[in-house]
Amino acid sequence: MDVEKHEAIVLLSGGLDSTTCLAIAKNQGYILNAISFRYGQRHLRELDMAKRVGVHFGVKRHIVVDFDMRAIGGSALTGDGEVPKGRSAAEIGRGIPVTYVPARNTVFLSFALAWSDVIQARDLFIGVNALDFSGYPDCRPEYIQAFETMAGLATKAGVEGRPVRLHTPLIRLTKAEIIQKGHGLGVDFSMTHSCYDPPPDGPACGRCDSCILRRKGFSEAGLEDPLDYPD
Amino acid sequence: MDVEKHEAIVLLSGGLDSTTCLAIAKNQGYILNAISFRYGQRHLRELDMAKRVGVHFGVKRHIVVDFDMRAIGGSALTGDGEVPKGRSAAEIGRGIPVTYVPARNTVFLSFALAWSDVIQARDLFIGVNALDFSGYPDCRPEYIQAFETMAGLATKAGVEGRPVRLHTPLIRLTKAEIIQKGHGLGVDFSMTHSCYDPPPDGPACGRCDSCILRRKGFSEAGLEDPLDYPD
Repeated sequence: MDVEKHEAIVLLSGGLDSTTCLAIAKNQGYILNAISFRYGQRHLRELDMAKRVGVHFGVKRHIVVDFDMRAIGGSALTGDGEVPKGRSAAEIGRGIPVTYVPARNTVFLSFALAWSDVIQARDLFIGVNALDFSGYPDCRPEYIQAFETMAGLATKAGVEGRPVRLHTPLIRLTKAEIIQKGHGLGVDFSMTHSCYDPPPDGPACGRCDSCILRRKGFSEAGLEDPLDYPD
Repeated sequence: MDVEKHEAIVLLSGGLDSTTCLAIAKNQGYILNAISFRYGQRHLRELDMAKRVGVHFGVKRHIVVDFDMRAIGGSALTGDGEVPKGRSAAEIGRGIPVTYVPARNTVFLSFALAWSDVIQARDLFIGVNALDFSGYPDCRPEYIQAFETMAGLATKAGVEGRPVRLHTPLIRLTKAEIIQKGHGLGVDFSMTHSCYDPPPDGPACGRCDSCILRRKGFSEAGLEDPLDYPD
């Protein structure tokens, strides 16, 4: 068996999108490796969810990389300012939100790239989506393409003719389509978590941008969100 | 004053190259910001050196970003395997060495990019060199160019028409030329440190690849290396 052809690394937060992305990679026949990040985010609970999701999908390896984004600052997700609540989907789609973490996907993908060079996994999956959060520059196809080009020049594997390939199976899907896709692949959405600012006694606030887009997605998909919301 | 035009971020390890790079940025009139990394390297002493160098050059801000490269593994510099000793400069120039840290410059530059977006510094300086370590893929001009292209698509500043610019003033210089350049700018090389595997009682082993290239550089530059070596 050609290991390099089959090992994949999936960036896994334990959220709805990355879990669906993991299910898609599994469905495509890859041997799964998951990478998660502890980066000073408010919603640390997502790491527990990510671990459970990884075990559920039978990942071969799962690493958590620690780094401290708070030294850099600049985002409501890592403690600078308030997470906005109660915005409409139209408001959420406009401009770059305060929950934008500067260059986050670049940092995440860089670590995944480093790991890919060590375990010789050639395929990286990331559940970015260009539609709902049009305000995140590092979720757009042209960004992903540029990262892939850079990555091919950055590593030992690239120099040796085995550059990594980036897979973004969700990039052009609506949230409803992502949910339908995951549903079709048997994803148990009660294991997934999306909230930016979960309350101490529950999985989700229901009112941050991420909760609002999730709830709207389930509604449009005609499926029931298994999470309990306070309202 | 146009702050965006003048603030620069310099990747600073406290080594000979990055310190010279800092001196060059200062000489070009930039307001200096330094970023260093604690990433599980063997040679932690370099961070103390970096701090001292930063103070000496009057940096406006200096942050140290912590992350753990050991979860990823794959390099003699972070504990996997032995640091080679006593190789000739010709041997060092051949192939990718075991001290290669996978995608290290990509990870470093990604954090610098994130910070640049927060403090609105548009110019990033990195002391990479394509000559001595031809085996490091992420020290080559084509890699740097590809990172810059990706970076322009990754951030808020890039989207708003202020993409970062990467500066690599040492990329085509020999070690001797770097030393002469630093010497001309008044760099105190006793503050800089290059060793991959320093002994407990001194600044440098004298025999790792990095020490060997440094000593050869001083010799070719016709200058005296102020560091004490055991042999």
